[in-house]
Amino acid sequence: MKNTFGTCVCVTIFGESHGSCIGAVIDGLSPGVKLDFDLINARMNARRAKGEVSTKRHEDDKIDFVSGVKNGFTTGTPLTMLIENKNVRSGDYSKTEFLARPGHADFSAQCKYHGFQDGRGGGHFSGRVTAALTAAGAVCECALINKNILIATHIANCAGVTDRVFSDYEAEIKSLVRKVFPVLDDEAGERMKAKIIKAKDNLDSVGGVLETAVIGMPAGVGEPWFDTLEGIISHAVFSVPGIKGIEFGAGFAVAGLFGSENNDEPVNKDGIVTHLTNNAGGINGGISNGMPVVFRCAVKPTPSIAKRQNTVNILTGENDIIEIQGRHDPAIIHRAAPVVTAVTAIAVCDMLSQRYGTDYFSVGGVGL
Amino acid sequence: MKNTFGTCVCVTIFGESHGSCIGAVIDGLSPGVKLDFDLINARMNARRAKGEVSTKRHEDDKIDFVSGVKNGFTTGTPLTMLIENKNVRSGDYSKTEFLARPGHADFSAQCKYHGFQDGRGGGHFSGRVTAALTAAGAVCECALINKNILIATHIANCAGVTDRVFSDYEAEIKSLVRKVFPVLDDEAGERMKAKIIKAKDNLDSVGGVLETAVIGMPAGVGEPWFDTLEGIISHAVFSVPGIKGIEFGAGFAVAGLFGSENNDEPVNKDGIVTHLTNNAGGINGGISNGMPVVFRCAVKPTPSIAKRQNTVNILTGENDIIEIQGRHDPAIIHRAAPVVTAVTAIAVCDMLSQRYGTDYFSVGGVGL
Amino acid sequence: MKNTFGTCVCVTIFGESHGSCIGAVIDGLSPGVKLDFDLINARMNARRAKGEVSTKRHEDDKIDFVSGVKNGFTTGTPLTMLIENKNVRSGDYSKTEFLARPGHADFSAQCKYHGFQDGRGGGHFSGRVTAALTAAGAVCECALINKNILIATHIANCAGVTDRVFSDYEAEIKSLVRKVFPVLDDEAGERMKAKIIKAKDNLDSVGGVLETAVIGMPAGVGEPWFDTLEGIISHAVFSVPGIKGIEFGAGFAVAGLFGSENNDEPVNKDGIVTHLTNNAGGINGGISNGMPVVFRCAVKPTPSIAKRQNTVNILTGENDIIEIQGRHDPAIIHRAAPVVTAVTAIAVCDMLSQRYGTDYFSVGGVGL
Amino acid sequence: MKNTFGTCVCVTIFGESHGSCIGAVIDGLSPGVKLDFDLINARMNARRAKGEVSTKRHEDDKIDFVSGVKNGFTTGTPLTMLIENKNVRSGDYSKTEFLARPGHADFSAQCKYHGFQDGRGGGHFSGRVTAALTAAGAVCECALINKNILIATHIANCAGVTDRVFSDYEAEIKSLVRKVFPVLDDEAGERMKAKIIKAKDNLDSVGGVLETAVIGMPAGVGEPWFDTLEGIISHAVFSVPGIKGIEFGAGFAVAGLFGSENNDEPVNKDGIVTHLTNNAGGINGGISNGMPVVFRCAVKPTPSIAKRQNTVNILTGENDIIEIQGRHDPAIIHRAAPVVTAVTAIAVCDMLSQRYGTDYFSVGGVGL
Repeated sequence: MKNTFGTCVCVTIFGESHGSCIGAVIDGLSPGVKLDFDLINARMNARRAKGEVSTKRHEDDKIDFVSGVKNGFTTGTPLTMLIENKNVRSGDYSKTEFLARPGHADFSAQCKYHGFQDGRGGGHFSGRVTAALTAAGAVCECALINKNILIATHIANCAGVTDRVFSDYEAEIKSLVRKVFPVLDDEAGERMKAKIIKAKDNLDSVGGVLETAVIGMPAGVGEPWFDTLEGIISHAVFSVPGIKGIEFGAGFAVAGLFGSENNDEPVNKDGIVTHLTNNAGGINGGISNGMPVVFRCAVKPTPSIAKRQNTVNILTGENDIIEIQGRHDPAIIHRAAPVVTAVTAIAVCDMLSQRYGTDYFSVGGVGL
Repeated sequence: MKNTFGTCVCVTIFGESHGSCIGAVIDGLSPGVKLDFDLINARMNARRAKGEVSTKRHEDDKIDFVSGVKNGFTTGTPLTMLIENKNVRSGDYSKTEFLARPGHADFSAQCKYHGFQDGRGGGHFSGRVTAALTAAGAVCECALINKNILIATHIANCAGVTDRVFSDYEAEIKSLVRKVFPVLDDEAGERMKAKIIKAKDNLDSVGGVLETAVIGMPAGVGEPWFDTLEGIISHAVFSVPGIKGIEFGAGFAVAGLFGSENNDEPVNKDGIVTHLTNNAGGINGGISNGMPVVFRCAVKPTPSIAKRQNTVNILTGENDIIEIQGRHDPAIIHRAAPVVTAVTAIAVCDMLSQRYGTDYFSVGGVGL
Repeated sequence: MKNTFGTCVCVTIFGESHGSCIGAVIDGLSPGVKLDFDLINARMNARRAKGEVSTKRHEDDKIDFVSGVKNGFTTGTPLTMLIENKNVRSGDYSKTEFLARPGHADFSAQCKYHGFQDGRGGGHFSGRVTAALTAAGAVCECALINKNILIATHIANCAGVTDRVFSDYEAEIKSLVRKVFPVLDDEAGERMKAKIIKAKDNLDSVGGVLETAVIGMPAGVGEPWFDTLEGIISHAVFSVPGIKGIEFGAGFAVAGLFGSENNDEPVNKDGIVTHLTNNAGGINGGISNGMPVVFRCAVKPTPSIAKRQNTVNILTGENDIIEIQGRHDPAIIHRAAPVVTAVTAIAVCDMLSQRYGTDYFSVGGVGL
Repeated sequence: MKNTFGTCVCVTIFGESHGSCIGAVIDGLSPGVKLDFDLINARMNARRAKGEVSTKRHEDDKIDFVSGVKNGFTTGTPLTMLIENKNVRSGDYSKTEFLARPGHADFSAQCKYHGFQDGRGGGHFSGRVTAALTAAGAVCECALINKNILIATHIANCAGVTDRVFSDYEAEIKSLVRKVFPVLDDEAGERMKAKIIKAKDNLDSVGGVLETAVIGMPAGVGEPWFDTLEGIISHAVFSVPGIKGIEFGAGFAVAGLFGSENNDEPVNKDGIVTHLTNNAGGINGGISNGMPVVFRCAVKPTPSIAKRQNTVNILTGENDIIEIQGRHDPAIIHRAAPVVTAVTAIAVCDMLSQRYGTDYFSVGGVGL
C-alpha cells in the first residue's frame, strides 16, 4: 500500500497544497455511524491556523461529503470528503522552486519523483493535506464514540515548557475537544505561546512533545507479532508531518527502571480486572489490556524558517543559499495535536473492525 | 494481516515456546540471493542466550531450510526455515499456569483468545519466537548486502551506562556483527554487564536503549503518507518484545531544538549531494535522503523477575500472588539487538523491493 | 481491503448514482506517465450511453483531475479524478424504493447495510460508478502504452450473434479503440444491435460474451499460488457489474480436449522463444509466458427490464410486484467492454509495478 | 502479496515437490475451532493419488501440526502444518531438466526466476503443493462447520461424460465428503474413469469441469467493487493448478438468456426471503444473497503426457524434442476437486472473518 492506511477500515488521502482541493476516502467503515458535525468541526478548527502562533494562510476547510453519507449517517460504502483550496499563493514559492528547503522533503522527493512532483507549497507533502487526514479521523471518532471510546491529544511539552499529565481522563479528554491550543494547564499554554512568538521574532521555530490517550479501548485488540497495537498506531502516527519519535506508557523511561518498578500488577477491583499502574501504556504483548492507551510523540520544529540557510539546487545539484518566504507556522505542535488524534482514531477504528467485524460501529438499521 | 509483515517481501512467523519447532516463511524475496551462512549464524548466535547475563535455557538454534533454497541461493519462491525446540521444561510453568505474570501478555492474551492460547513458556508470545524472526531477518540482510546496504544495532544505554555514538559507520557496523554483547565501547559494555548481574542478584531486571544504523540506503524510498519509512520501520520494530518507544535521528530531542538547529542543510560535496547533519535520521517527508537511517528503541526490563508480585488468576479473576520460577534473562537488551536488526532488514528489504522490483536483489542467473 | 484494488498500484473508487460526483484515486502509479487524453476520452466515450441500444440517461463525463497530475504528466502521488453527476432523476426510483429489483443487489445490499445504503439509482452499486473505473483504467493504459502493452475488448458474442476472433492483434486492438460498439466484424455488430433493439421492444434485455486481449505483456509476471495472473485479473474483472464468468485461453473448452491437443508447444522462431498455440491464454503456472493474454467474460442481460416481476419489499419482507421505470439499457455488453479493458489495465499495471518497481512506467525526468 | 491469500484469515503455502516437506501457515483463524480430523483426513485422502486414474507416486500425507493447535482446538495464533515428502524420485527429471514441458510453467518460471527455481518435479509449481493447500482448506472447513456452512465439489463433466446436477444440496454435499472420485451419479463416474484410462493408454490425458456449492452462507457478505464474492473466490480458485475458467450460477449461459429469464425473483416463503431461481449463483452485486453459492471451474487435461512433443531448451533457447518420463496422472480433475473445495473454504472463511470479526468461528472458551 501507499497513501492508504488500514486493513478493514481503509483511509486514502490525496491532494496538493496548491491544487483545487484535497480529500480523503474512508472505505470499510460500518454503515449507520451518525456523523457528529460539532465534533468534526471542532477537530477541523483545532487544526486550522489561527493567531500569532500560526501561519497567515487561512482556509475555511468546509468539508464536502460527496459520497458515503445519507441523512447524516454513513452508508457503509466509500465515504469521500473534499476540501477546497482557496487561499493559494503560488508566487511565494516560484523564486525558490528548485532550492531544497532544509528539513523538508524537497530533496528526497526529487530522488523519488524525478522532477515530476508538484513542488508548489510542498505539493502532496504539504501540511495542508493534514486537513483531509483530520476530517477522516474525525469521522472515525464518530464511530468510536458509539462504543464510548474517546481520544484526545495535549501538548505535553513545547519549547521547554511542560503541561501537567492526565489525571481524570474522561473529563480532560472531553475538555480538550474545544481547545485550539490543547493543554491541560492553560497557564502553561500561555507560556508555551510566548516561547513560540519569541522564536518567530527570531525568524526561527520550535518543537515539542504531544501526549495522546485513548480510553474505553476493549482488552484483547492487537496481535503478538507485526500487527501489534503499538506497531499499527506508530505506523499511522509517523504520517503526521514532523513527528520523529513515539513512545508508549513509560516509553524511553523504561531504560532506567528495574523490572520490579516497570511491571504493572493486575488487580481485581470490585469484580473488574485492571492494573495498578500503566507503564505499559495499555498494551501487553502487542494487545490492549483495557487500561488507557497512552503514548507521546516528538514533533520537530517547523522546518520553514525565515533565516538564511545553505542548500542545493535540486536541478543542477549546485550549492546555493535559501531564504524562505511565504506564510509559515513558528510551531506546528498545536496544529499537529488534532492530526495525531485523527490518525489514532483511524488506526483504532481499523483494529476494532478487524476484531469485531464490519457492523461493530453500526447503530440501529431498518428492514430485513 | 496479522503475524505477517510486508507488502512485496512478506515474512510470516509461527510457533510456540514449548511446541516442536518455531519458524518463518519469507515470500517475495528475489531469486538468486546467496545465503551467507556465516552472517546468519552470527545473528543467531548473538540472539542466543549465553553467560551470566542471560537465561539458562540453551538451544542450538540450527536452522532447517525446508523450502526456497537451492544450492545456497534463494529460488524466489517461499523460503521456509524451521528451528527445533529442544530444551523445553514445561514443568516450570505448570504451577502458575493461570496466574497472569505482570508485564507479560498473559492477561491481554486471555482477553483475546479466551483460554485457547498456549500458555506454556509464553506460547506464541515467547521471546523464543524471535529466533525465527532473527533467522528471517538474517536472510533479508544477505539480500541487502548484495546492494551494499549494511545494518547494525548497538546498546546505546543499559541500566544507566551509556555507549559511545557511531563515528565510523561502516567499520563499526562490520565490527558489531561478531559481538554477542553489542557495544561500540567494550569497556562500557563491561560496566553494563556488571549492572545486569547486580539486578539479577536482586531478583530483578534492567532495560535500556538500542541504536540501529542502516547505511547504503538509496535516497527516494518511502511514501509521504502512511507508508513513510519511519512508519514502516516502527511497525516492524514494535514486534520485538519489550520495545516501548522508537525515535529517528534527533528523536525526542527535537522538542528542545530550534528549527535553525534541527534542519539538516543539504550540500554538494565533490559532486555528491549529502547533508551537513543528520537530525532527520536519513528520512525527510517519509522518504530516505541518502544519509544513514538511524533510530533508537527503548527496551523495557525483562518482566519475568523472581520477586513476589501481586496479580490475578485469569480463570477465576481472583487476586493472587505470583513468584515466577523458570529460566529467565535479567536483561534482554543485548539479545534484542539482533532482533531489531532483523526486523529492520525485513522492513528495508520490503521497501526496496516495492521501489525497485522483485529482481532487485538477484545476482546473476542463467539461461533465457 | 474493500473498494480498493491493487498491491503497488492501488485504485479506489467511490460515489453513488445520484450523488454530486463519482470518482477514483490511483495511488502508486509511476511519476512521469504522460496522459493521453485522446485515449482517455475514447474509453469514456465508449462506456457512455448512446443510441437506441443504450439508456437515455446522458452524462458528459468530463473528468476533473484534482490531484496527482502536473503539466499533463503523473506526479507519482495519488491521482484523483472526479466526474460530476448531472443528469439525475431520482423520482424514477422513489415509487419502488423498497422493492428489491430482481437481478440487482437491492436485497443483498439490505442484508449488508441494514437500510443505511443509498438506494437511489442503485447508489454505489450503479453502473454509473463504472465511469470512474473506466477513467482510472484509461490512466493505467497510458502507463502501459509507454511499455508497448496494448489492451482491447470486443464483443465475442451477443444474443446469439458471434463476432470473429482476433487474427492480427495489434491492428485490431488499435482499431477497437475508437469503436463505440466494439466488434471486429462490423456486420456482425449490426446484427447484434438488431437483436438488442428487438429485446428492448419486448421490454426485455440480452447478455453476451466479451473477449479481451493484452499484447506486449512481458514473460515472467505473476505468482505460482494465489497471486496468479489469472487470479488477479479475475479478481478485478468480477468488479464489472453483470459479469458471471471468466475463462482464459481455451477456457471451458479445455474440458473437451486431450492433453496432446491442449498443450502449447514452445518453439524458437528466429531467436525468439514463443509458442505454437495459445490455449493457455498467455499464462502458465500463473505466470505470463509472453504470448497474448486472452480471456473471455460472460455478461448477463441487464437486470432492469420493464416487464412485471415478482419480488419482495426489503423493509417489510412482504411479497410484491415490481414494474421497473427509469432509463435503462436493453444490453450493457458494449458498455461493459471498456470497463473490462479498464480493470484489466489496472490489474496489469499493478502486477508490472510489483515486478519491475515504481519507476517502471516513468518517462524521462529532470534534475538529480 | 504473493503466495499468501486473505485479508483477515491468511494462508501461506510453501514447499517444493522434491524438498523435505511442504506446508501451510494459517493466520487469523478464530481461537477455539475444534479440528475434525475425520474431515481433514477425508479431504487429504480425496486429493491423494489412488488407482489407475492417478499417478503412481504415493505419499501418506500425514499432517504434522507444529503450531497453533492445543488439545485439538485452534489457539488463534498461526497454525502451521507440515507434510513430509517421502516418495521422491528426482532421477525421473534429470534427463529433461532444461527442456520446457509443454503446458507446464517451466518456461514462464525461467523468465521469472532466471534459473534459480527448483525444477525437480516441478518444484514449487508441483501439484504436490496442493496437499498443503488441501490441509489448510480442511482446517478452514472445520471452522465453517461450526456455522453450518458446508462445501463440496463434484465432477460436473469429464472427457465428455456429464454428472447430474445438485438436487438436494445438504445430503449430496455430505455424501461427497467420503468419495475419492466425487460424482453425484456413480455410474457416470465409472464412465468417466473408463475414458481416463483410455486416454492414458493413448499416452494422453483429459480435462473436465468441476462444480462447487457452498450452503449456509449468510446473506450480506462481499463488496460491491473489487472485493466482490465472485472476485475473491475466483482469485483463490485460479491457484488450483490447471484451472482456466470459472463461472458462477448460470455462468456463460447468461449470454443466451433474456433478462426476464435470467433474473432470480425474490420471494417470501414462510417468513424467509429466498429466490425462486439461482442463476446468480447466490451472489448479487458482489454480495451473497443467502442462496447456495454455486460455481463451476474448467480443469485442463494434465500437461504431463508421455507422447513426444516439440519444445525448447530453457538454457540455450534451442528447439528440441521432449518425451516426458515419470509418474503422472492421466487426469487430475478428481484430485483437483478437494483442492477447489479447500481454496473455497479459505476464501469464505476470510470473508466471514472480515464481516463478523475474529471470534466468529470460536466455540466456547474459559476464564475471563
